Amino acid sequence: MSDERPTTAAMLVIGDEILSGRTKDRNIGFVADTLTDIGIDLEEVRIVADRMAAIVEAVRALSGRYDYVFTSGGIGPTHDDITADAIAEAFGVPLRYDPRATAILQAYYEGRGIEMNEARRRMTRIPEGADLIANPVSAAPGFAIRNVFVMAGVPAIMQAMMDDVVKRLPAARPLVSETIEAGRGEGDVAAALTGIQERFPDVRMGSYPYHDGTRFTTRLVLRSRDVAALAAAAAALRAALAAL
Amino acid sequence: MSDERPTTAAMLVIGDEILSGRTKDRNIGFVADTLTDIGIDLEEVRIVADRMAAIVEAVRALSGRYDYVFTSGGIGPTHDDITADAIAEAFGVPLRYDPRATAILQAYYEGRGIEMNEARRRMTRIPEGADLIANPVSAAPGFAIRNVFVMAGVPAIMQAMMDDVVKRLPAARPLVSETIEAGRGEGDVAAALTGIQERFPDVRMGSYPYHDGTRFTTRLVLRSRDVAALAAAAAALRAALAAL
Repeated sequence: MSDERPTTAAMLVIGDEILSGRTKDRNIGFVADTLTDIGIDLEEVRIVADRMAAIVEAVRALSGRYDYVFTSGGIGPTHDDITADAIAEAFGVPLRYDPRATAILQAYYEGRGIEMNEARRRMTRIPEGADLIANPVSAAPGFAIRNVFVMAGVPAIMQAMMDDVVKRLPAARPLVSETIEAGRGEGDVAAALTGIQERFPDVRMGSYPYHDGTRFTTRLVLRSRDVAALAAAAAALRAALAAL
Repeated sequence: MSDERPTTAAMLVIGDEILSGRTKDRNIGFVADTLTDIGIDLEEVRIVADRMAAIVEAVRALSGRYDYVFTSGGIGPTHDDITADAIAEAFGVPLRYDPRATAILQAYYEGRGIEMNEARRRMTRIPEGADLIANPVSAAPGFAIRNVFVMAGVPAIMQAMMDDVVKRLPAARPLVSETIEAGRGEGDVAAALTGIQERFPDVRMGSYPYHDGTRFTTRLVLRSRDVAALAAAAAALRAALAAL
């Protein structure tokens, strides 16, 4: 049954500015939330520099291993925007000025009195065989080729593109979760949590220690695609915590 | 000369909670900033789940390719904290209850009337041959083995551990940067930027479009280890922008 094997995904963030710390990534969390909502498991994220070899290697590795790959960054008009080149290289297809992308940008720039110069024309270069991803914010499209969705790095644009991408993804049985506040340190609840985990193998359990301002306490999060199993595990865990 | 080849690093973030979106990572940006400050190039980041095979593969790949690897997450007391096991497996060394770590935790817990139970004792398991990393926040140490520094996932603890780690890293000639506000769209400055980049190959140039509230504009960032080259490139870029 298709329910048995979860749909998997990876994300590839492309950009020197993230690796230098100058820009703090906000796209990983957004993609993670979106995929969790629709029941796709994000299993790996990589961040690489604006370097051809690094992007090509990561695209090949991730697209071969996961059902879907989502990329952000490197599709603008400047010399360091080489994501489209790298994706074409990774899949061995030509990169061409795309008439659909050209029409979109021409209409957008003409309406605003912006010159369609060589740099902007660069953003119409799309690998052969790709479908476009709509960009309602600033027009220059992303694209989808094979199992890879290529999006902008600017968060507002990436998020708008993701709205268009989500429509093309299969609906899955979403992961549901329940959070239990343990009210005590992680070391005090670990044994109980391990015991419950063994009883409910279909429910994934995580413990997240944090400081609530006065002391370290722990949030326990149970996740499953099976609503009944989740409820049973949560009840068992609450009972075990109450007995501590 | 050692200046010619930059010192490289990768980061490995371990944790289902980041991939599900439940927790938003704050450690990547901190490590990126810290390494940039001391002149080490962060070249790649990976985020993987709390799964043995995924962690082992990533540790081996990254430690073989970069000078240093920094990990965060998965060294707490619960069943899903398997980073120490995975690091030992990756390097083929035994994982043992470490007497140094045991002494630290016993002293810390005794002073606070906290029970040293089996779960907390789990945090004293350290791969053979590793050095400890101090944890001034909650005592349970990180560790360093070969070129890998293994730290906690809780940001306050990770940041404190990083203070101890930085002392062990070589001082390098730091990367210096200059930011120039272009005051216009990325497509308007791309050609000028490409021209300047060709003249100054030792200065890395990035352009970062953003929305300033009313329009898309662009920040240009120049980075180099060569202060004189950086100043010359910045002057040339300012002149080129003024001539647009």
